Amino acid sequence: MSNQESPVDDGALCCSPVMREPLDAEKAGTLSRVFKALGEPVRLRLLSLIASHAGGEACVCDLTGAFELSGPTISHHLKVLREAGVIEGERRGTWIYYRVRPDTLRLLSDSLVPAQDVAVTA
Amino acid sequence: MSNQESPVDDGALCCSPVMREPLDAEKAGTLSRVFKALGEPVRLRLLSLIASHAGGEACVCDLTGAFELSGPTISHHLKVLREAGVIEGERRGTWIYYRVRPDTLRLLSDSLVPAQDVAVTA
Repeated sequence: MSNQESPVDDGALCCSPVMREPLDAEKAGTLSRVFKALGEPVRLRLLSLIASHAGGEACVCDLTGAFELSGPTISHHLKVLREAGVIEGERRGTWIYYRVRPDTLRLLSDSLVPAQDVAVTA
Repeated sequence: MSNQESPVDDGALCCSPVMREPLDAEKAGTLSRVFKALGEPVRLRLLSLIASHAGGEACVCDLTGAFELSGPTISHHLKVLREAGVIEGERRGTWIYYRVRPDTLRLLSDSLVPAQDVAVTA
């Protein structure tokens, strides 16, 4: 489960200078799917909770207490984050433990750096 | 028009360590609205086109040629980006010239930096 397909696994987005040259339609489709996954407040809070949890990982049992939402709803949002490639899950015993995928987060973060900042630091 | 309200103008997101401590519901709502605006391929391409255009700004006349979309559809997407605070527009003569708002882009970019990268560079 930790090696599931991800829209950003294939390197299609690697090093795309989004703010320095026009993004082509294919890369825009790939990248926008990941941003869309983050464009929902519960999912963003889940991502933040997982990233900041002790040991950098959390199971559903650690997450449900923060929300007045059903377990299946939380699981649905986790699935969207997983399919977008921003988290991955690993089953250990009863629970699936989720952690963020720093590679994906770095790609997203780098894609939004304003061109002038790159020019300054290059 | 260049000073329109933006969801990120009020400093609510400034320095939110999204990956280091749990994001509260209010900040998650604010930040997710901006990611949602980026979660659409045409909008992401528009943002990239504007950011990478000569002089760092572009009018609708510079943008429509890249898409098989009507002018009003392009204008709608530009409005969503503007309301999300990622671009701003200034009317000069016949045209409105759009440029990215590097402050917003920096906030978004910083919010996605993995915790371990912050620990390494701090």
